[in-house]
Amino acid sequence: MVWNTNLRWRLPVICLLLQVALVVLFGVFVRYDSDADPHWLDTKEQENSTSDMENEFYYRYPSFQDVHVMIFVGFGFLMTFLQRYGYSSVGFNFLLAAFGIQWALLMQGWFHSYYQGYIHVGVENLINADFCVGSVCVAFGAVLGKVSPVQLLIMTLFQVTLFSVNEYILLSLLEVKDAGGSMTIHTFGAYFGLTVTWILYRPSLHQSKERQSAVYHSDLFAMIGTLFLWMYWPSFNSAVSNHGDAQHRAAINTYCSLAACVLTSVALSSALHKKGKLDMVHIQNATLAGGVAVGTAAEMMLMPYGSLIVGFICGIVSTLGFVTHVAFTTCMACPASSAPSWVL
Amino acid sequence: MVWNTNLRWRLPVICLLLQVALVVLFGVFVRYDSDADPHWLDTKEQENSTSDMENEFYYRYPSFQDVHVMIFVGFGFLMTFLQRYGYSSVGFNFLLAAFGIQWALLMQGWFHSYYQGYIHVGVENLINADFCVGSVCVAFGAVLGKVSPVQLLIMTLFQVTLFSVNEYILLSLLEVKDAGGSMTIHTFGAYFGLTVTWILYRPSLHQSKERQSAVYHSDLFAMIGTLFLWMYWPSFNSAVSNHGDAQHRAAINTYCSLAACVLTSVALSSALHKKGKLDMVHIQNATLAGGVAVGTAAEMMLMPYGSLIVGFICGIVSTLGFVTHVAFTTCMACPASSAPSWVL
Amino acid sequence: MVWNTNLRWRLPVICLLLQVALVVLFGVFVRYDSDADPHWLDTKEQENSTSDMENEFYYRYPSFQDVHVMIFVGFGFLMTFLQRYGYSSVGFNFLLAAFGIQWALLMQGWFHSYYQGYIHVGVENLINADFCVGSVCVAFGAVLGKVSPVQLLIMTLFQVTLFSVNEYILLSLLEVKDAGGSMTIHTFGAYFGLTVTWILYRPSLHQSKERQSAVYHSDLFAMIGTLFLWMYWPSFNSAVSNHGDAQHRAAINTYCSLAACVLTSVALSSALHKKGKLDMVHIQNATLAGGVAVGTAAEMMLMPYGSLIVGFICGIVSTLGFVTHVAFTTCMACPASSAPSWVL
Repeated sequence: MVWNTNLRWRLPVICLLLQVALVVLFGVFVRYDSDADPHWLDTKEQENSTSDMENEFYYRYPSFQDVHVMIFVGFGFLMTFLQRYGYSSVGFNFLLAAFGIQWALLMQGWFHSYYQGYIHVGVENLINADFCVGSVCVAFGAVLGKVSPVQLLIMTLFQVTLFSVNEYILLSLLEVKDAGGSMTIHTFGAYFGLTVTWILYRPSLHQSKERQSAVYHSDLFAMIGTLFLWMYWPSFNSAVSNHGDAQHRAAINTYCSLAACVLTSVALSSALHKKGKLDMVHIQNATLAGGVAVGTAAEMMLMPYGSLIVGFICGIVSTLGFVTHVAFTTCMACPASSAPSWVL
Repeated sequence: MVWNTNLRWRLPVICLLLQVALVVLFGVFVRYDSDADPHWLDTKEQENSTSDMENEFYYRYPSFQDVHVMIFVGFGFLMTFLQRYGYSSVGFNFLLAAFGIQWALLMQGWFHSYYQGYIHVGVENLINADFCVGSVCVAFGAVLGKVSPVQLLIMTLFQVTLFSVNEYILLSLLEVKDAGGSMTIHTFGAYFGLTVTWILYRPSLHQSKERQSAVYHSDLFAMIGTLFLWMYWPSFNSAVSNHGDAQHRAAINTYCSLAACVLTSVALSSALHKKGKLDMVHIQNATLAGGVAVGTAAEMMLMPYGSLIVGFICGIVSTLGFVTHVAFTTCMACPASSAPSWVL
Repeated sequence: MVWNTNLRWRLPVICLLLQVALVVLFGVFVRYDSDADPHWLDTKEQENSTSDMENEFYYRYPSFQDVHVMIFVGFGFLMTFLQRYGYSSVGFNFLLAAFGIQWALLMQGWFHSYYQGYIHVGVENLINADFCVGSVCVAFGAVLGKVSPVQLLIMTLFQVTLFSVNEYILLSLLEVKDAGGSMTIHTFGAYFGLTVTWILYRPSLHQSKERQSAVYHSDLFAMIGTLFLWMYWPSFNSAVSNHGDAQHRAAINTYCSLAACVLTSVALSSALHKKGKLDMVHIQNATLAGGVAVGTAAEMMLMPYGSLIVGFICGIVSTLGFVTHVAFTTCMACPASSAPSWVL
């Protein structure tokens, strides 16, 4: 965690200013959702008495906690494969995500949950805020080690804002279906990250290239990130699907796609290595592409074999992209982002 | 894991004796809760047929597993930041927690779930037993590296007993509301730990001070503990709330408070460092204070902005306390314990 | 990740062939379960309108995700205590499990979910596929460091097939009750692994014995595996139990048995060490035996004290077995497998 010590007051001041602004905006705009507010529930129960179990909380909360783990442990540890930045990776990811979820609750709230003069926040808003921050984590991967925490906070501020506008245009105006957020989250995040990298690019940065080597223990930490992302992806893709069979189907489809993706990633990684060895970085990145690619269609009647085909193709395309450097920087940004060429 | 080898039979004998006593007491006193017992359910279903989904299990079980992870992985790995004690930290935490949950099931059972001659155990009892052990884990942080496993087991025996009496007085006699257990769990745990440290204090212990330095990988392990505590805190505060909107609200409030706390902790940590750097130990400890402080009021109509204010203040107070050494030992005990000055 | 580089095309070819075969078989045989298919639900709802909450998804999904973590993080990291194989352990476990779950969906589907010309896949099938792969992970422990990924894939192919036949004979033909899969999963896995080790045994393998030493950080990684297995075992044993009180009871019984097992494992480990120290490998392995042993009877009216007795005995037997080398190789196979002598 090294940055210009002459500017030492910038981080504290910006953190406090942002947090004060958030407190004020929450005070003015944010209230509880009807499912979290006893007054609304009283009215509802007078009309027709329902079970407590019908609360949105019980439909969404287990998936929410899984998504939360993906954002903080999954993305945080995924980046530790870069030896020197392992520590910053986890810590800075923590900082930007904690700020991002608050700002996302507001931005997404204004677009999607604003009525009767207030943003109404429930567990589904928490999940969507985590999704939005997932997009920032993807972009963070592209700029890791090149930016200070202050720059990261500013990047998060802009990206969450743009994300929400983009999401509003795609989902509300164009009425695109994008359950797992392949377009809004992963592709957007990857290209945003690339753009930021391009803006920040200075030739002198090449000198620090040797810092990017991985070490043994760093890789094991990175596997913690990879595995939690991989395991919980079915929750990611089904967290905000419709109740019942749609949520059920989204989980099954993602499970199938992810499993298929592992085998084709291993096959390509081994085939493209001159000694036939496996490169763990390929595995870490490509295996997740299956979850991203199936995201958009996860709750549709894709059929299990359809999901396997998606995973099959993704494992190949993303490993190829990684090895041939065509999509190198994109892939660096995030496991997920290696899929866009197929998604689009 | 070093202790006086002359006393080598003490640990096995005490472990076996304690476990035999627990088996006998469980045999005499503990039976299943009505929701886990088919005979009771038969009666209930004759009266008015309800869905299987109305079983307490489905309201509480996902939160229970999250709390379980907090106790064993969260608190276990949190302490690994002390280089030499990393290993003992995880192992001893495992031992004391495994003993503590059994003893807590009995002690809390006698006070709260005893009727018809038996303690009736269901998933809510399991959560409360985990909560009680959470208090022991907080105290454990204050004595880490100073006590043997035998002493830890005895400390657990006493602390769980006192915890249950204290909880009974606060919740049942004084009818205090303390959903997230800020008072019963965290403050009690911190002061119990401090008292034990004070009793065990010997000047010679200062000589081993150099053992307390952190190393790079230890810090990454400690981040695993921190993050699992941070991520699952909404489950901690909502696990035993009332069904429906109260549980929903407790999760939202905790989510908001925790997020705000991260930004102010980072601000203070950077502002108080002479070169403006971040101290990861501050972040690890202070970020969790937001979860503790909001605990008592988590299920109330605190409003999202109210939760942000709680987190805002906590991040500042606990980092300040940590740096100025006013609450140094308390803070060492646990991230959580840095909040009491504000809570009380 | 070292294997014969002359055979470098074998792994990619086998991976791709297996995955193509799986895609074709899924295309011919696999469709969605009625709870994941809107057409079936439409019919059901016309008959008697039920809540979305009655979907099997909400009864099983949280447990499914816990089991998923046990298979990929739990078993993956458990084996990292062997210094040199830590990395292969996580990676190869990932590969074999990703292949295994797909093949298990088919094999178990033909035996248990085949009707109207199709295998119907729902969340319960996903859990059972994970269980089946759990058995492969147990066997994998016995052959770690002795086999190439290609051999592992072939072993998985055979073991999943045999597992499904064995499971069909035990559960469907002999109508044995085995909720937690102590027999079908753990005992079968351990003996399958032993058989494979026996087939692969060559005297020259002894030369690489010094590779099997553990190092400090490896042990902390292994504790991540151990703890996630230990914490989520209640979900493992209750995941496919009957709705309501049976699932509730299975979780309580497993929780009790696991806690008791920790104390007796520690007692025996310390008593059998000549200086009274604890051996973390005992703790890692024996503590889990309590979960395995209670598996078969988990949903029965075992009573909490009955579960404690099961855990008590298991901790002693499995640590004794480990130390006296009677069951040495079995124990190496998996924490779980140290129980069979008691289970059978």
